[in-house]
Amino acid sequence: MLHTPFPTHQLLIASYKGDQYRQWIEAAALPNLSIVEQPTMDCDILFGEPARIRELLPALPALRWAHATWAGVEPLLDPALRRDYLLTNARGVFGPLVSEYVFAYLLLHERKILQRRLSQASGQWDNTLTGTLRGKTLGLLGVGSIGAHLAGTGKPFGMRVLGYTRQSESCQEVDGWFHGDELPGMVRQVDYLVNTLPNTPATSQIIDARLLGALPPHALFINVGRGSAVDEPALAAALAEGRLAGAVLDVFQQEPLPPEHIFWRTPNLFITNHTAAPSFPADIIPPFAENYHRYLRGEPLRYQVDFALGY
Amino acid sequence: MLHTPFPTHQLLIASYKGDQYRQWIEAAALPNLSIVEQPTMDCDILFGEPARIRELLPALPALRWAHATWAGVEPLLDPALRRDYLLTNARGVFGPLVSEYVFAYLLLHERKILQRRLSQASGQWDNTLTGTLRGKTLGLLGVGSIGAHLAGTGKPFGMRVLGYTRQSESCQEVDGWFHGDELPGMVRQVDYLVNTLPNTPATSQIIDARLLGALPPHALFINVGRGSAVDEPALAAALAEGRLAGAVLDVFQQEPLPPEHIFWRTPNLFITNHTAAPSFPADIIPPFAENYHRYLRGEPLRYQVDFALGY
Repeated sequence: MLHTPFPTHQLLIASYKGDQYRQWIEAAALPNLSIVEQPTMDCDILFGEPARIRELLPALPALRWAHATWAGVEPLLDPALRRDYLLTNARGVFGPLVSEYVFAYLLLHERKILQRRLSQASGQWDNTLTGTLRGKTLGLLGVGSIGAHLAGTGKPFGMRVLGYTRQSESCQEVDGWFHGDELPGMVRQVDYLVNTLPNTPATSQIIDARLLGALPPHALFINVGRGSAVDEPALAAALAEGRLAGAVLDVFQQEPLPPEHIFWRTPNLFITNHTAAPSFPADIIPPFAENYHRYLRGEPLRYQVDFALGY
Repeated sequence: MLHTPFPTHQLLIASYKGDQYRQWIEAAALPNLSIVEQPTMDCDILFGEPARIRELLPALPALRWAHATWAGVEPLLDPALRRDYLLTNARGVFGPLVSEYVFAYLLLHERKILQRRLSQASGQWDNTLTGTLRGKTLGLLGVGSIGAHLAGTGKPFGMRVLGYTRQSESCQEVDGWFHGDELPGMVRQVDYLVNTLPNTPATSQIIDARLLGALPPHALFINVGRGSAVDEPALAAALAEGRLAGAVLDVFQQEPLPPEHIFWRTPNLFITNHTAAPSFPADIIPPFAENYHRYLRGEPLRYQVDFALGY
């Protein structure tokens, strides 16, 4: 293949961190690539957040490949949208950051940090024992690269890990696997349940009143997947009625969480703001650059989203 | 060797958890052993907390072996006390529990959990980014079994680990080693400094005003070793003057911390109550039982304390 003297590919960056991403992409010195500022008739590559990609789909007739800087690509799964392009997403890079988030809250809970703060504020030397992660059971709803990292992080703390998955059982750190209708059976055994599932028709409202009822009352539920997985009124009721020790939510059906939402008034609930695992250019650019070289060579791209499966 | 029909060894348990330990030791079915309730002329084995062992030393003329249920054995190091017995201690079992404690507070700090609680309480959707452990540098003062576990726990989070040690460099997860007078040089590079050193003459007041001055102002200091390692007024001053982001202390020169101690009024300080790594019978008994079998066979005991070194 001859190298052409002028770039043959046009990339449009559509991101609220566009300047940062542009610097990183320029630093990758991708051959035959021109970065364009506005949609053009010839632009074949689009890079950015899924919602911004969606807005630009009608304006890019020559689009062949879009790369999402997030893992979740719900905005692009609407069957009414075009699917005549390759969609790849950020994947395999969020495990360590999600582990930080999940273990931050598991440890906060077991080590009674908030209660100890209150003791300290009242000048009280409280040497009762706290709980420990050791010997506890972590249940994973979804065992992709994020779930696998959570499982691996739990092991040095002496935890048992159970995994609920559609099919793959490749993670060595999972001590027991569950499938299909075995989910309530898994949930009954856990001390902590962590959802990492993507938003698909199969995962919608999977954490419903029945599943919450199967969780032990001392359990903690953490959602780092998608808000669509949770029956939010059912979760608020379980927390308000003390049928669950606590919940930690980074994602919601509507974000930002509306001011009138019941979660603002729900006890034993930690609300964070879709900040568990941010997309950092240092994580996002290397797999994108690798895929660009594959694209140039006409090889299959990695991290492709299956529009039918939704991930 | 003939097995005698009557027990030939007498064990006295001297612990505030005596009933628990007695059950676990009985369950270990140690041969030729009688558990006695009170000091006797023939009692040759003593088991319990260091301070209780100390009290009983004068009452046990036949003592040949004492096993401490704690790692720190300061009460037994007084040169005025007898040293005509073997002293072993709980060791190698506290790593996972100390890692829980240390990472609980590192993650609380980086993930801004207390600040997020305030945002939530005011109904505010705060989606600014938090910090991450990833890319941060953890400095370990002491790299025994506890320091090594901390180093291993930091790796999946993507941390760099530096270690200050008297001699051993066996931990693979440490990225850089420091010795002797290189301590300030290490400390200048860290984001978090964790002390795990035992109480010995060499470690007394090792964290003094000069060393605190070498820590970057954004650093967090955590003490899970012994309170004797810290110049407490110097630490209080550094925190009060904002020369250090925060400190987390589980151990103090005097415990319980006296009501008039300045730490109760020091900002950005988390006080816990010597509860980072409790001694659980499930951890303590197996190495004791293993040592008992060695004792019976006349073999050298493991986990022996060197009275001169102090650990």
